[in-house]
Amino acid sequence: MIIKNLVIAASVACTGISIIWGVRKYRILKVDSRQDMDSHSNITMEPIVAAKSLEEELVPKIEIEKASPKLVQDITLPSPVTETKHKKNTKELKNPLQTSEYYTIEEFGAPNTLEYRVFLKKGTTYLSPFHDIPLFANKSKKTYNMVVEVPRWTNAKMEICKEEPLNPIKQDIKKGNLRYVANCFPHHGYIWNYGALPQTWENPNKVDERTGCRGDNDPIDVCEIGHRVAKRGQVIEVKVLGCFALIDEGEMDWKIIAIDVNDPLSEKLNNIDDVEKHMPGLLKATVEWFRVYKIPDGKPANQFAFNAEAMNKDFAHEVIHETHIYWKQLIHNQGTGLDLENLERTCVNVENSQFKVDGVKVAEIISALPTKQAPAPVSPEIDKWHYVHLQKL
Amino acid sequence: MIIKNLVIAASVACTGISIIWGVRKYRILKVDSRQDMDSHSNITMEPIVAAKSLEEELVPKIEIEKASPKLVQDITLPSPVTETKHKKNTKELKNPLQTSEYYTIEEFGAPNTLEYRVFLKKGTTYLSPFHDIPLFANKSKKTYNMVVEVPRWTNAKMEICKEEPLNPIKQDIKKGNLRYVANCFPHHGYIWNYGALPQTWENPNKVDERTGCRGDNDPIDVCEIGHRVAKRGQVIEVKVLGCFALIDEGEMDWKIIAIDVNDPLSEKLNNIDDVEKHMPGLLKATVEWFRVYKIPDGKPANQFAFNAEAMNKDFAHEVIHETHIYWKQLIHNQGTGLDLENLERTCVNVENSQFKVDGVKVAEIISALPTKQAPAPVSPEIDKWHYVHLQKL
Repeated sequence: MIIKNLVIAASVACTGISIIWGVRKYRILKVDSRQDMDSHSNITMEPIVAAKSLEEELVPKIEIEKASPKLVQDITLPSPVTETKHKKNTKELKNPLQTSEYYTIEEFGAPNTLEYRVFLKKGTTYLSPFHDIPLFANKSKKTYNMVVEVPRWTNAKMEICKEEPLNPIKQDIKKGNLRYVANCFPHHGYIWNYGALPQTWENPNKVDERTGCRGDNDPIDVCEIGHRVAKRGQVIEVKVLGCFALIDEGEMDWKIIAIDVNDPLSEKLNNIDDVEKHMPGLLKATVEWFRVYKIPDGKPANQFAFNAEAMNKDFAHEVIHETHIYWKQLIHNQGTGLDLENLERTCVNVENSQFKVDGVKVAEIISALPTKQAPAPVSPEIDKWHYVHLQKL
Repeated sequence: MIIKNLVIAASVACTGISIIWGVRKYRILKVDSRQDMDSHSNITMEPIVAAKSLEEELVPKIEIEKASPKLVQDITLPSPVTETKHKKNTKELKNPLQTSEYYTIEEFGAPNTLEYRVFLKKGTTYLSPFHDIPLFANKSKKTYNMVVEVPRWTNAKMEICKEEPLNPIKQDIKKGNLRYVANCFPHHGYIWNYGALPQTWENPNKVDERTGCRGDNDPIDVCEIGHRVAKRGQVIEVKVLGCFALIDEGEMDWKIIAIDVNDPLSEKLNNIDDVEKHMPGLLKATVEWFRVYKIPDGKPANQFAFNAEAMNKDFAHEVIHETHIYWKQLIHNQGTGLDLENLERTCVNVENSQFKVDGVKVAEIISALPTKQAPAPVSPEIDKWHYVHLQKL
């Protein structure tokens, strides 16, 4: 087993020492230090105790973040399945697209295949982006954590999987095929960073009084309109500016409009009207995008409530508040009024939830996953431009 | 030295044999064949004669295309600096984006740096995409070879370099910085595969009678509107449909509208009016794109002749014909009427040109280049969307 990027200050002295990593114990066989090395070293280790509950597949995936001096002294690494106080270095702290919580991702399987999964982690702890990431990034400022599912200008319809434990991000499947959203001219892929707010749920058993539609059974969706292209699985702190009331095949499917708080324009955008002022045409394009995007797949145009007008910030906060309450009922199994057997509520952080599990259970989930692989090829067909908006609307 | 992708049918028998590659001679030390191999093998070789005229950097870049049975029998590989009859296998022939001439590319330096270069090759022969690739792909069908400089939906302004020998593709530089074209909402990067027709030249010493403007001193530009995203340096066979007469800072800068002959829509597109019929809005977007794309960089809007109307196919063929004649004068140094010292006319295929060079000279050019490296990081600033079109026009 080789662990990359682990700084061992006293590397020579380590050989022969055993360390504990998660539920396994390893003996260090060899430390391969480079002369010019100030941040990297390859360490070869062999397992001493083979924990039967962990499959072999788990092992090659473990990559330790650049370690703190404390870690070197202890030589006992933090468990991958329990909370850790391990912090990233200050260089990474300055990355303005990193949230204050420092979530990271880990990929399993090959991108562009049915098996591909993206798990979210906090430190070395796997968690559910649906249930374990707090809705609020900063409650007093009313900023939210957003989980990015689809980076701007990409087509693969990635989403938080409601049906699998810890709700990894996976690509949506339609009739057995991976789903890629069509490019409708003049747009390329999604025109915002698209994702969801954690700890929210559009309850399909509740009729929205404003629109008469039931929830679509998903976390609430967000379009992040900052200038940066985010990364899949990234957690961004966003300021909410408004929302649209999309009716997707008869279901209520709110689309929150928000901006990364670290975007230079964020200071100037404080409500929905500011969007049109600083990004003229974006809201109109957003409505058009949602109306037409399923037409190339043979579906009808989507509808909007409120004459497709964008609702303001206060309205959006209220909608989010409601979906957060529905999520609380969901995670505590109270009054949802539905058989929710296929909705995965496994979580690691939600206190008093009957679905909260420990590190051993998490290790079981992770051990069943395929190792990360190189992306599978994608058909050039996904790059086609469809001209539906002018022909059919 | 390891050469990848070389099929040696009688691989075991090859060990110990010496081969000649370019101006060097190698001894085969080891052939690493896989059991399931039908197309790959790693070959380890050591140089027997170290040719001093070639720098060490050249060696790791050489990748031999899948070899024909003839090649295996000969075991003397074709020189990288002379013409070869070496053909690709039939599987690759089916790739509809590959031209009938099977051009390939070779990269030097790191993408997103000043040193990055993309050289074009035919077989193992380096050549100039400006001078050595024939203008016509099929003269009787009036289809042309197009060299792709900027793939659709990308921003790096890559172009055939007129000032360096063999005219590699490099990124344009503005005030010492690499040039990235701004995204003007709603567009993402270039909205077509953008490139040039080889063996054409917009003569800056000639005033175009139709527009009163002098040529911009470049090969003629092409917007390829097929559905596939092409690759940088790819050579595509295109059908010409029309053109726009862009006046770029007072210079004549024709923009040919064309489509890959292998695109499924190609059969239906036979003249400029068919573009609006099958791709409604694309020509209007093209005009808008060229008008505004330099505004975020502080430049004025571009102008068009002919009221920004698209000219038809016959008009475009005529313009191309003229620029081809100007190129002929250029490459044969006849009647250009200008001091052209900084225009690099080094070529390997143009008969009777005083600028034609042999393989030794080409090897010298290539040997001076840096080795290929991983891409340098790019500022997220290039992903910014600018809203100039609605604010300023």
